[in-house]
Amino acid sequence: MTQVKVMKDILQTNNSVAGTIRTRYDSEGVLVLNFVSSPGAGKTTLLERTVAGLKNDMKIGVVEGDLSTSLDAERIAQHGIPVIQINTDGGCHLEAWQVNSALAELPDEHFDMLIIENVGNLVCPTNFDLGEDKKVLVMSLTEGDDKPLKYPGSFTAVEAVVINKIDLAPYLPAKVETMRENALSINPHLKIFEVSCTSGEGLDAWFQWVRDLRAAKGTRLTGEQPTNA
Amino acid sequence: MTQVKVMKDILQTNNSVAGTIRTRYDSEGVLVLNFVSSPGAGKTTLLERTVAGLKNDMKIGVVEGDLSTSLDAERIAQHGIPVIQINTDGGCHLEAWQVNSALAELPDEHFDMLIIENVGNLVCPTNFDLGEDKKVLVMSLTEGDDKPLKYPGSFTAVEAVVINKIDLAPYLPAKVETMRENALSINPHLKIFEVSCTSGEGLDAWFQWVRDLRAAKGTRLTGEQPTNA
Repeated sequence: MTQVKVMKDILQTNNSVAGTIRTRYDSEGVLVLNFVSSPGAGKTTLLERTVAGLKNDMKIGVVEGDLSTSLDAERIAQHGIPVIQINTDGGCHLEAWQVNSALAELPDEHFDMLIIENVGNLVCPTNFDLGEDKKVLVMSLTEGDDKPLKYPGSFTAVEAVVINKIDLAPYLPAKVETMRENALSINPHLKIFEVSCTSGEGLDAWFQWVRDLRAAKGTRLTGEQPTNA
Repeated sequence: MTQVKVMKDILQTNNSVAGTIRTRYDSEGVLVLNFVSSPGAGKTTLLERTVAGLKNDMKIGVVEGDLSTSLDAERIAQHGIPVIQINTDGGCHLEAWQVNSALAELPDEHFDMLIIENVGNLVCPTNFDLGEDKKVLVMSLTEGDDKPLKYPGSFTAVEAVVINKIDLAPYLPAKVETMRENALSINPHLKIFEVSCTSGEGLDAWFQWVRDLRAAKGTRLTGEQPTNA
């Protein structure tokens, strides 16, 4: 079973690097989020909204993962925050060593929060710890309300689900409530947000959750001294 | 480089089984399509529409691929055609051996067309030949018109792209024309259909393309004698 052996080696190596990342940012009181989703669910748009909504409260850095192009990093850079693009060149998920290398390229300054945007893939990122505090799954309502049942691994691997594009609900057969129920049937501990990154609806609750997570990592915000270092 | 060696072995084994599938269905004059897409782009709905639109013209069988559940197979079975569900149990794409085993479970009768619905994943199915005549990529307009640029491997691996959910165009920032242009910039040979599986718009051109492909495999349709066997 060479394939299984290789996979085990890959995951062990990955987890070791992820542990290094986590130890570092825990000691510095930095919140680290890992955004996962299907292609086009709205990770980058949620990221832009989050940066715009919170950048006055905290210093944010971003690591973008894509198969190719730097389109997403260019979108984030327009908000005036540091961003590093990883191109996996066909790789279906980010691994911790890639993130670790990218983090080393960020400017040498204190961040309050780092957000990693994974490759658009509802399957493969599931098993790869990137050293994050929380994995957040962005799911577009347009994908259909049965998706939690069909991709259960992703829903058990995350702490929060952001149901996006709810402004399109009137035009879709999918129901927000059914998607929520299906998600909770797979993982009853999920924190679920219902938002439209187009209209802004629902984003305040998301922003507050992120602020609370950041506060729980330590009270240091940009310009303050660390209290948990 | 154990990982690369293992991947090479996996692909060689896969291609060998895919070759067996292709040889069989070429000799029998059966058209085989492999539907790939992101989660929730509308593969199953296109499949239902295709079955409803063509089942009086040709005998159709379906192989469904999902991580878990038989939800999609149940939807197809309601149309009264043979369908086999593969559950990959976390696997991010179908492999030829899985398809070969599933095909053996179909009723022992002559099919004119077999459609394989891959796992919803815009990355991993790209490299895995399933013995199909054509790979068809279903892309929802809701995913954003930049996706061909960000997932180029999928667009070079397929012969046709079905841009779905165009009925939602008035409510989306994405433009059908931009998605088309971006797709053709990656692969100028693509046949592109613009459809709404909800309203039915654009499906006639898709049906005709499938009929023409079927005819090109040999003139035998259900009840007729093979001419190319």
